[in-house]
Amino acid sequence: MSVLVVGTVAFDSIETPSGSAERVLGGSASYFALGASFFAPVRVVGVIGQDFPQDYIDLFTQRNIDIEGIERADGNTFHWRGRYHEDVNLRDTLELHLNVLAGFEPKLPETYRDAEYVFLGNIDPVMQMEVLHQIRRLKLVACDTMDHWIGESREELKKVLQRIEILVINDSEARLLSGYDNIVKAARAILKMGPKMVLIKRGEYGVLQFSDSSMFATPAYPLEEVFDPTGAGDSFAGGFLGQLARSGDQSQGGLRRAIVYGSVVASFTVEDFGVKRLTNVSLKEIEDRYQRFVQLTDFHS
Amino acid sequence: MSVLVVGTVAFDSIETPSGSAERVLGGSASYFALGASFFAPVRVVGVIGQDFPQDYIDLFTQRNIDIEGIERADGNTFHWRGRYHEDVNLRDTLELHLNVLAGFEPKLPETYRDAEYVFLGNIDPVMQMEVLHQIRRLKLVACDTMDHWIGESREELKKVLQRIEILVINDSEARLLSGYDNIVKAARAILKMGPKMVLIKRGEYGVLQFSDSSMFATPAYPLEEVFDPTGAGDSFAGGFLGQLARSGDQSQGGLRRAIVYGSVVASFTVEDFGVKRLTNVSLKEIEDRYQRFVQLTDFHS
Repeated sequence: MSVLVVGTVAFDSIETPSGSAERVLGGSASYFALGASFFAPVRVVGVIGQDFPQDYIDLFTQRNIDIEGIERADGNTFHWRGRYHEDVNLRDTLELHLNVLAGFEPKLPETYRDAEYVFLGNIDPVMQMEVLHQIRRLKLVACDTMDHWIGESREELKKVLQRIEILVINDSEARLLSGYDNIVKAARAILKMGPKMVLIKRGEYGVLQFSDSSMFATPAYPLEEVFDPTGAGDSFAGGFLGQLARSGDQSQGGLRRAIVYGSVVASFTVEDFGVKRLTNVSLKEIEDRYQRFVQLTDFHS
Repeated sequence: MSVLVVGTVAFDSIETPSGSAERVLGGSASYFALGASFFAPVRVVGVIGQDFPQDYIDLFTQRNIDIEGIERADGNTFHWRGRYHEDVNLRDTLELHLNVLAGFEPKLPETYRDAEYVFLGNIDPVMQMEVLHQIRRLKLVACDTMDHWIGESREELKKVLQRIEILVINDSEARLLSGYDNIVKAARAILKMGPKMVLIKRGEYGVLQFSDSSMFATPAYPLEEVFDPTGAGDSFAGGFLGQLARSGDQSQGGLRRAIVYGSVVASFTVEDFGVKRLTNVSLKEIEDRYQRFVQLTDFHS
């Protein structure tokens, strides 16, 4: 079962306490696609500019990611520049150049329209909705968003929320969207907006999952070094939805195991700059760390 | 198997976003003792002043807590006044009156000297060491401390750390004590100072446990309301050590289950002001929430 993602394909320029990287491959669709590619075939919808190098395209194709849906437009590629604090949970955006992303109208190749597992990465809710309209056989739609769209495009976002099954969002965004400081109250309020499930990402503190009937909490995998947190959330979503597509198991346990797979993928992502670790980690390493995650959290044996 | 605690018995005056309470029963020994009392007999070493009311003493004796080791000295009881921010993870100390705590020299009643499970609550490391010297049959010693002692009494604290099995500490204190921002590195550095195990409390984000041979991570029980976080850490330690004394099980699994019991006790503590919830919760409620905690974290079934 394949997974379709729409989102940004970008240049990222990153400074962290551990070092810096200039114009490396970034964007929500890139991290999601690489993270999901260990579990299932992936198709990407996005836009790049004339300056996007073949080397970066090769990073997708080497992992058998279908890039037919990536449009090359006139102009330059979306470029984000950010700096992380000593506390890497905090970051500042220093530059943001939308470039070809401004006015992007996603068009799905015919072969993409039977997608069953869909991830609407963090882009304009209007673009997210355009993608949904073009898909014939929706089975499971997950969606991300960010403070900018919650503030500036709330009505459009609310329409999207009524069409999706799973909202993947970080804790500060959940507070902003719901108006509640308490994260349990925030999640309950968001469930009333449409999604059947809310996944709340808390960075190094793990993930909370809420539905009407259940609640799941899991820590993050503790790491001795976090080189670059960029893309942790998107690769988490990729591992999560990829594992769901691989297993076909949407039982309560199946969903929870997919959350743990997502956490494991994210733990690799932050071990090196940009997408680097995602391009050299193996499925065996992911499966091994999943087992270590089982041991990390087990208090029954 | 009984548990001995030395620490403060205090008046707390508390302001939180949910309300305020004036001169209620507080202190590390009080929260620990009440938290542990659901699982094992508890003996308290501490000091109170002439102004300490019988009503508060009754709160201990109603839970069968042995208060023979609480000395009543001339002067007033230790009094702390604090205010929590909207983000209840942050608080300011507004007033601190040591009163009878200044110059306190803990003296253990003869019947306390065979204690096997000991908790050195957050007081001057010199007092913590005096208690250790008076005990004949140490089996397991856990210890808490705070930024003040890490900064002002580091050498005395380091001597205590060489005599204990388990350090219970919050994440910012672990960073201060070790000099490492990264929590895994911080824990590894603290293990080299003497303790065989470090428990790192992260408030609403749960607990990390480190030893040379294993690592355990567990989330906190998500709550819709946190009325007053005061005493969460001490009652966590009480539930943890109380459960260890009840079970006698210091296997890896036994230690981890004790951590979960501690988390469950702490989750009740914060549901009301001061020690109030700890004085009306039942063991059955604790056991029920432990089972819900199992369901909350399970991804195997």
